[in-house]
Amino acid sequence: MLLSERSEVAGVFTRNRFCAAPVLVCRQHLKGSARMRALIVNTGNANAGTGEAGLRDARATCSEVARLTGIEPNQVLPFSTGVIMEPLPLQRLLSALPACVKDLAEDSWLDAAEAIMTTDTVPKAVSRQVNVDGVTITVTGIAKGAGMIHPNMATMLGFIATDASVEAPLLQKMVREAADRSFNAITVDGDTSTNDSLVLIATGEVGGRIEREGSNQYIALRGAVTQVATSLAQAIVRDGEGATKFITIRIEQGHTHDECRRVAFAIAHSPLVKTAFFASDPNLGRILAAIGYAGVEDLDVSLIAMYLDGIRVVKDGGRDPEYREEQGQAVMKRDEITIRVELGRGEATATVWTCDLSHDYVTINAEYRT
Amino acid sequence: MLLSERSEVAGVFTRNRFCAAPVLVCRQHLKGSARMRALIVNTGNANAGTGEAGLRDARATCSEVARLTGIEPNQVLPFSTGVIMEPLPLQRLLSALPACVKDLAEDSWLDAAEAIMTTDTVPKAVSRQVNVDGVTITVTGIAKGAGMIHPNMATMLGFIATDASVEAPLLQKMVREAADRSFNAITVDGDTSTNDSLVLIATGEVGGRIEREGSNQYIALRGAVTQVATSLAQAIVRDGEGATKFITIRIEQGHTHDECRRVAFAIAHSPLVKTAFFASDPNLGRILAAIGYAGVEDLDVSLIAMYLDGIRVVKDGGRDPEYREEQGQAVMKRDEITIRVELGRGEATATVWTCDLSHDYVTINAEYRT
Repeated sequence: MLLSERSEVAGVFTRNRFCAAPVLVCRQHLKGSARMRALIVNTGNANAGTGEAGLRDARATCSEVARLTGIEPNQVLPFSTGVIMEPLPLQRLLSALPACVKDLAEDSWLDAAEAIMTTDTVPKAVSRQVNVDGVTITVTGIAKGAGMIHPNMATMLGFIATDASVEAPLLQKMVREAADRSFNAITVDGDTSTNDSLVLIATGEVGGRIEREGSNQYIALRGAVTQVATSLAQAIVRDGEGATKFITIRIEQGHTHDECRRVAFAIAHSPLVKTAFFASDPNLGRILAAIGYAGVEDLDVSLIAMYLDGIRVVKDGGRDPEYREEQGQAVMKRDEITIRVELGRGEATATVWTCDLSHDYVTINAEYRT
Repeated sequence: MLLSERSEVAGVFTRNRFCAAPVLVCRQHLKGSARMRALIVNTGNANAGTGEAGLRDARATCSEVARLTGIEPNQVLPFSTGVIMEPLPLQRLLSALPACVKDLAEDSWLDAAEAIMTTDTVPKAVSRQVNVDGVTITVTGIAKGAGMIHPNMATMLGFIATDASVEAPLLQKMVREAADRSFNAITVDGDTSTNDSLVLIATGEVGGRIEREGSNQYIALRGAVTQVATSLAQAIVRDGEGATKFITIRIEQGHTHDECRRVAFAIAHSPLVKTAFFASDPNLGRILAAIGYAGVEDLDVSLIAMYLDGIRVVKDGGRDPEYREEQGQAVMKRDEITIRVELGRGEATATVWTCDLSHDYVTINAEYRT
């Protein structure tokens, strides 16, 4: 992907300590003073756990892209996704670059979304327009990722661009805020990848420059970026490896947002909860158990209520006397289900999106490399 | 299970905030001054998430056991395992009790081990003898548990008895220490149950009274109890739902025992690592990724080495140049595999036992209630 000269670029990256060589290179290039002009993505090999050789390979890729496009190597951001701990097949990658550069086109978003797929079954691309001070701003994004999905970030690569004009420090703030409400609120399998990257590009071709954090313009654009990021993140969950159901977990009445997130992720990560959803079995006790071990030490379980798509199933910490198994059965058969939990301890909330754990998840991941 | 009059009893229980009614009753009875004389276990229903009614049912069970055996209700410890959040079928349970009491016999350990099975495929019973001051002491234990297995404790019920004589506070210390090295070092699916209970009984029929923590007698007996507990805990992992492989994860050269445990459990809980083991696929990068997201913030990955059954696969944080894929393949085909990781930051160690994630895990848990 080539960026126009005026573009500002910001990014957030995995917190995995074994982060991939391209992530290290991206961080380094973004810290420098050069303007980013190109993004290069390879799939099939993560270039992670590859030590010094991996770094050399990532830099060699940047150099070749720079040579072919007439920019500097430190203006290139590299991204990789695929198998970890195997050497990057550098020669194959380099020999394919001239054709890639030749094929560059302004309307290739969907082609790019398809090109970066790994175990994804559908390409993920979203576009929104928002009116800022009478000017129509476009925000378009693509993403990939279907397994090893957990904040921070999901195993995913995400690229979002807008034609708005935004100062670099504000753009960095915006991408962090958008990530926290989207990619950092999803999980497929609880595995945080070595390669997660989300990049936000502002080409600055439309409208006035956004320079102030609290301004209406900033808030409007952040809203659009967050919407695009959330749609992409939810698309990743819907396409989660082997997923048959899309589950929204909403925790309310918590003491802090952080404890709400912990409870939500405890539910979202429980293999027992996930297999029950796969089986359309309202085995609600498994959800209660996950709430109980989420690490909220002073939780008073007798205050807890739980709803399944609006049906109250738990009241005062126990089964709601009015709840009938048939009601739970009916909800569990749906493709999209919302679990809402009231903790009865405060005003904080959190929402997390996840999917079920199916036979296909095991099949896909048992056979990934073969 | 009826205990002789002089028996001392100690126990450790789940830390799940949604702990089951029988766990609450056990804790209450053990805190009191009465001597425990009977243990009653039901399977199929966990009596958890059942609120006040669940507590009444657990107490009613104790009362009926007491009436039938001529002891007091607060001398009875109740245990339940099974589906959460469904009312205990109290009448069925009570009507079965007279036959249970009539069948009590001193040599029924194996019958009991069979009776408490749920999704277990084999009964779990272990016995060891140890010489303490010239006297032969016997330690015998049974356990159940195959899913919802994670500290603290595993989803499991464990009952260990010795004919040694031990003061109550020392016995409580001993059961805690034995649990930490055994049941609290295993995981099948990372789900901490609402009902976990481990009870240690000392009938006091053999040998002198053990009264001092640092004494040779204490250490010898604790060793035997820990051995029995470890054998039972490992048997639970071997019989983990759908398990086809037994995996030992040994973390060395950590800064603290706690961080070693965190790294070990990050590996042990990763669905991607577990499915790779199921597939006998040396997809070692998934293990590196888990080490990287285990939450050791200042981890220097360039110091890390990793061994698969003695074969060094990672050196200086990257693939060992001498490692060949065929070597990894050969190890991964084994039924028992040890992953050893050197963190290169200190002297601490931790060991955790787990199993793989197979199609059968999904099948068993998707169909558990049907």
